[in-house]
Amino acid sequence: KPLKIAVIPGDGIGVEVMPYGVRCLQAVGKVFDIQFEFEEFDFASVDYYEKHGDMMPKDWKEKLSNFDALYFGAVGMPDRVPDEVTLWGSLLKFRREFDQYVNLRPCRLLNGVASPLANRKPGDIDFWVVRENTEGEYSSIGGKVFEGTERETVMQETVMTRIGVDRVLKYAFELAQSRDRKKLTSATKSNGISITMPWWDSRVVEMSKKFPDVAVDKYHIDILTAHFVQRPDIFDVVVATNLFGDILSDLGPACTGTIGIAPSANINPNGTFPSLFEPVHGSAPDIAGKGIANPVGMIWAGQMLLGHFGHKKAADALLKAIEDVLGRSEPHILTADMGGKGDTKSLGEAIEKEILAL
Amino acid sequence: KPLKIAVIPGDGIGVEVMPYGVRCLQAVGKVFDIQFEFEEFDFASVDYYEKHGDMMPKDWKEKLSNFDALYFGAVGMPDRVPDEVTLWGSLLKFRREFDQYVNLRPCRLLNGVASPLANRKPGDIDFWVVRENTEGEYSSIGGKVFEGTERETVMQETVMTRIGVDRVLKYAFELAQSRDRKKLTSATKSNGISITMPWWDSRVVEMSKKFPDVAVDKYHIDILTAHFVQRPDIFDVVVATNLFGDILSDLGPACTGTIGIAPSANINPNGTFPSLFEPVHGSAPDIAGKGIANPVGMIWAGQMLLGHFGHKKAADALLKAIEDVLGRSEPHILTADMGGKGDTKSLGEAIEKEILAL
Ligand SMILES: CC(C)[C@H](C(=O)O)[C@@H](O)C(=O)O
Ligand SMILES: CC(C)[C@H](C(=O)O)[C@@H](O)C(=O)O
Repeated sequence: KPLKIAVIPGDGIGVEVMPYGVRCLQAVGKVFDIQFEFEEFDFASVDYYEKHGDMMPKDWKEKLSNFDALYFGAVGMPDRVPDEVTLWGSLLKFRREFDQYVNLRPCRLLNGVASPLANRKPGDIDFWVVRENTEGEYSSIGGKVFEGTERETVMQETVMTRIGVDRVLKYAFELAQSRDRKKLTSATKSNGISITMPWWDSRVVEMSKKFPDVAVDKYHIDILTAHFVQRPDIFDVVVATNLFGDILSDLGPACTGTIGIAPSANINPNGTFPSLFEPVHGSAPDIAGKGIANPVGMIWAGQMLLGHFGHKKAADALLKAIEDVLGRSEPHILTADMGGKGDTKSLGEAIEKEILAL
Repeated sequence: KPLKIAVIPGDGIGVEVMPYGVRCLQAVGKVFDIQFEFEEFDFASVDYYEKHGDMMPKDWKEKLSNFDALYFGAVGMPDRVPDEVTLWGSLLKFRREFDQYVNLRPCRLLNGVASPLANRKPGDIDFWVVRENTEGEYSSIGGKVFEGTERETVMQETVMTRIGVDRVLKYAFELAQSRDRKKLTSATKSNGISITMPWWDSRVVEMSKKFPDVAVDKYHIDILTAHFVQRPDIFDVVVATNLFGDILSDLGPACTGTIGIAPSANINPNGTFPSLFEPVHGSAPDIAGKGIANPVGMIWAGQMLLGHFGHKKAADALLKAIEDVLGRSEPHILTADMGGKGDTKSLGEAIEKEILAL
């Protein structure tokens, strides 16, 4: 039975890197005998919004529910439509309405990728950030009073539920349990955010009772970001609220030099709705249209998709193909962000070729 | 007229580093002819809490209001009293009730301090984080419903006011205007936190109209943390909400290798109440009582105090004394966190001696 993949390129460089993501998956499929069925959609884009006044058609959920996964490029063109409109109208909607309550991102020093940190080499840093992906600080509850006056006051509610927090903690504990080091770090801020965060801490303590073999620690988010820079080797699995996870899963890849190429999996662990796989980078309006965007984030997102559906060998091979190509450091292949003179095509095709040569 | 300083050592290593902070200020006073009057207080500590059931006496405000500044060590002993109790009962109370609405922290590569970043040298990184210090995400508004059940839901409100946001923006713009590069970066998250943060952005735009000579940009907090690691040289003044500023002002000093020694000024710019000067580090229960804590954060906080009261020459000399001592990299002087074999006393006295030799 083929894997049914909805392809949603979105905006900007999303449109440019997507073809190489799809081609690499097709190549892996050929080598490892995995069937895919791709179908492309033009919504969840600013073009679509400007034509239809909405980011997606009314029946988007119906259209997409029967896919196994969404393969998503990037969305947003803030000069044309405010980010909060495009994001809340597409990506954040997928996460919520498809109940993709886990956002999973690797922080890994790859072969061939220069880290901004001093004295770190491939293998030194290898951990996951597990981010709560549907609730918490990203609520749409709140508003303004005394608008336009000196008394103007603006409020926004953070909302956490036991169901929402426990399920992502469980996922993170299970992930830690499956790894060699079996270590879980919780991101908190219970000394300052005095209602939700002490409660988050208490849920971590509660859940930890079910995982006696997992070592647990916690850090306040401020010092935790400092540790990401200073001692990234101490982490194994880091679990965080929606906002803290958002921050840590950009900072982590930045520390490993992979912010431009890291992937992100938005997972619905029950499989009641499709999961979504995307690069961490955005639509990058400043370089869009030039064909120079780095396609590795998109391709690596496809690698996470393979892993998610249990194709471990294929996933490992694809990651190795990426590392092998990057590790050769050929200037005519690499994109400018990696110090090369190549473009999206040269790097995308090199990885595709690497796979097909397996 | 002498500067009246309330000395509040607090807990843990706060108590150990404070004497060297005071001695260095006295030394600077001697050299530059500045009079100080120090008075020490034992409240705002866990010891006090355990004796009195409260972090501070009822009349703390009366007791402290007439000082020019509070010189504060560190507070908290989470094994004895939860952090949210000690912090909300002291430090966060000072910030709010003394209306210290600006939290100012330097991110600077110092001579003699190793940065975890590759290929950065003293002078490369030199910027300020200006943090809103009284409102925003640190509210005590919120609560729980359906406690103890599967439906349990916990909420906490972020509250921003036009008065509160505008005044800290004004401070940040003025600071940027006073510097060579005249550049202000605003930390936002308007693509995800869709009510308060777009409004914050609009206040930045509004305030920027009054400062046409200041160049303004903004980044979402996730990618901003990445830039702190990858391109720290691009920043001049960074302004942020209470929570984002908390994160950035730990991350910034981490990137410059100064997280253990950075200072923090909690400023009431109107002077209606005393400002508070403290090291960024906490009470560090794990190393407390051993006399090995690094006193530089406490001393550098004293340096900010001098600058705040217009003693520019004295402040410059004290910072130079710190850099000169650190720059000599003498193992028997430096504390263990800096790779040395010395202790609080050896490093504290070396800086004091350096000043007295001026
Ligand atoms: C101790 C804590 C409440 C405090 C804060 O979050 O403000 C600290 O991290 C700081 O930055 O001064
Ligand atoms: C674009 C934005 C709303 C989004 C988020 O904050 O979740 C992005 O930063 C991410 O991490 O996927």
